[in-house]
Amino acid sequence: MYTQSELKQLVDKAIGNLTYNGEAARLIDPVRYVLSIGGKRIRPVLALMACNLFSDTIDDAVMPAVGIEVFHNFTLVHDDIMDQAPVRRNYPTVHTKWNLNQAVLSGDVMAFIANDCFLQAPPAQLVEMFRTFNRTAIEVCVGQQLDIDFETAKIISQAEYIRMIELKTAVLLAAAAKIGGIAGGAAAKDAQLLYEFGRNLGLGFQIQDDILDTFGDTKVFGKATGGDIVSNKKTFLLVKAMELAPAKTRKKLQELADLKEFDPEEKVKAVMNVYEQLKVKSVTESIANDYINIAFGKLDKVSANRKRKGEITGLAESLIGRVK
Amino acid sequence: MYTQSELKQLVDKAIGNLTYNGEAARLIDPVRYVLSIGGKRIRPVLALMACNLFSDTIDDAVMPAVGIEVFHNFTLVHDDIMDQAPVRRNYPTVHTKWNLNQAVLSGDVMAFIANDCFLQAPPAQLVEMFRTFNRTAIEVCVGQQLDIDFETAKIISQAEYIRMIELKTAVLLAAAAKIGGIAGGAAAKDAQLLYEFGRNLGLGFQIQDDILDTFGDTKVFGKATGGDIVSNKKTFLLVKAMELAPAKTRKKLQELADLKEFDPEEKVKAVMNVYEQLKVKSVTESIANDYINIAFGKLDKVSANRKRKGEITGLAESLIGRVK
Repeated sequence: MYTQSELKQLVDKAIGNLTYNGEAARLIDPVRYVLSIGGKRIRPVLALMACNLFSDTIDDAVMPAVGIEVFHNFTLVHDDIMDQAPVRRNYPTVHTKWNLNQAVLSGDVMAFIANDCFLQAPPAQLVEMFRTFNRTAIEVCVGQQLDIDFETAKIISQAEYIRMIELKTAVLLAAAAKIGGIAGGAAAKDAQLLYEFGRNLGLGFQIQDDILDTFGDTKVFGKATGGDIVSNKKTFLLVKAMELAPAKTRKKLQELADLKEFDPEEKVKAVMNVYEQLKVKSVTESIANDYINIAFGKLDKVSANRKRKGEITGLAESLIGRVK
Repeated sequence: MYTQSELKQLVDKAIGNLTYNGEAARLIDPVRYVLSIGGKRIRPVLALMACNLFSDTIDDAVMPAVGIEVFHNFTLVHDDIMDQAPVRRNYPTVHTKWNLNQAVLSGDVMAFIANDCFLQAPPAQLVEMFRTFNRTAIEVCVGQQLDIDFETAKIISQAEYIRMIELKTAVLLAAAAKIGGIAGGAAAKDAQLLYEFGRNLGLGFQIQDDILDTFGDTKVFGKATGGDIVSNKKTFLLVKAMELAPAKTRKKLQELADLKEFDPEEKVKAVMNVYEQLKVKSVTESIANDYINIAFGKLDKVSANRKRKGEITGLAESLIGRVK
């Protein structure tokens, strides 16, 4: 059994060992840059842990796991263009450090580098893994589109919001777990349970993330609170508040969102007052917990020894508890 | 044996029948738009013809051929962003008709739709076809990078220029021919000959295209002449002229390129005078013809009945002769 930190090291090493067509340094420099900034490598580590549930050797899962991480970083490079984000993980984004065209093109090549990783998978499982990955990649694009569409939409239902975060975030965690399972030789039923584990975990995680942005402790979580409110982001909290609020309160929320000039602190306070009246935080926490409980229930049903599930359980707990 | 026009119809139909994840209309509308504008479908038709050299049924080649066309159009959508091109094939480009973000994201999903086409290839040949395609996709990105790099480079050698157009244009024609051959059951040697046929044809075609922009007849080819000179594009003609010119003439060419204000017609005339002195046109034509002759030589060696090669020969001739 590999520990989370061993697997992260293994992923970092495999990413460092990626070989590129080196004819155009300017194309590949941003790719190396983005991949070296790192992050927690949650998705590839999850894939390797899922493989390790069924198999002592995890070699067959390494390149697909790396492919998932490269794909994930490809989406970040292009999402940052669309969001005009200057910074990601405390480093300048590619379109800021280089320029727009470079971010488009170096992003593009990452999609094909991800393909290349899958094309190195063991022949017997290559096509099934690749199909799972590619269906997910298309879904992630759809999720990003829905996210963009929501920016200009007046009202979003809970179902619409859940579907957006499912596509934009949850399915990639789901695919990572499933692909790792396939590499480890999981039966179809177990591979699907792992998919559902990842999907529900992703949903719970994303809803929790919305709670943390507004209610989280800056010191503990290293994230400023209230940014979502200031920018009128359609979070689960806002969607839920609009659903629960009586007409008059809904109108007030809309007026707060429509303000052109405002004191950010006052706006955050006013919206949070509404959230408090409507008990939005506890309602939202309870929904996040439902997804998380479903996730652990799916993991429970996977036909692998309980002891073997320790690492993957720990990863999931650290993700939702934000302790690591 | 299928004719070129039958194959084009078949490709158009298969593209029209592509199914998409339809949850986000705004994501897919630009994809349908770009793919419906069409063009001559040279690459997929070439792939189907290559398949038809070895096999009476071409079904196995259809989805990979469509995948190549979708990929090609993906590169056009993103290249048009990078070139800030307002029009392509007489229609507004995606970033003009929609916006930048939409062009990035709808372009992205096309890369995965292309993957999906390859994932529908016959299992026995899927991986070989996909590897050929994906290596090529990475090369095309490298070629686009070299093209961007050349814009700001002072002097480009003939070898550098040839390598750029090889990667940006020729390898995709090469891959199309090879992938079609693989689908038809070609032996490895024949698949490689088809690759070399497509590669050399692409090089000859691209060099000819440079000649036509400067020397072509607007009435016959429907293309204005001299645009490359006005915009200082590093064409084969310019690269060759800089190579052949004595120091004084080279300095003059550089001065013409450095002009900030100029009468376009006069600039074109002055540069064309230099080209005439140096016999750049005939030197360039001869090099293009060398590549084209090599291409037909490779096709000759492919182990298929001469009569069967009629359609593919016709396609190649129409491409370089610009008669269709």
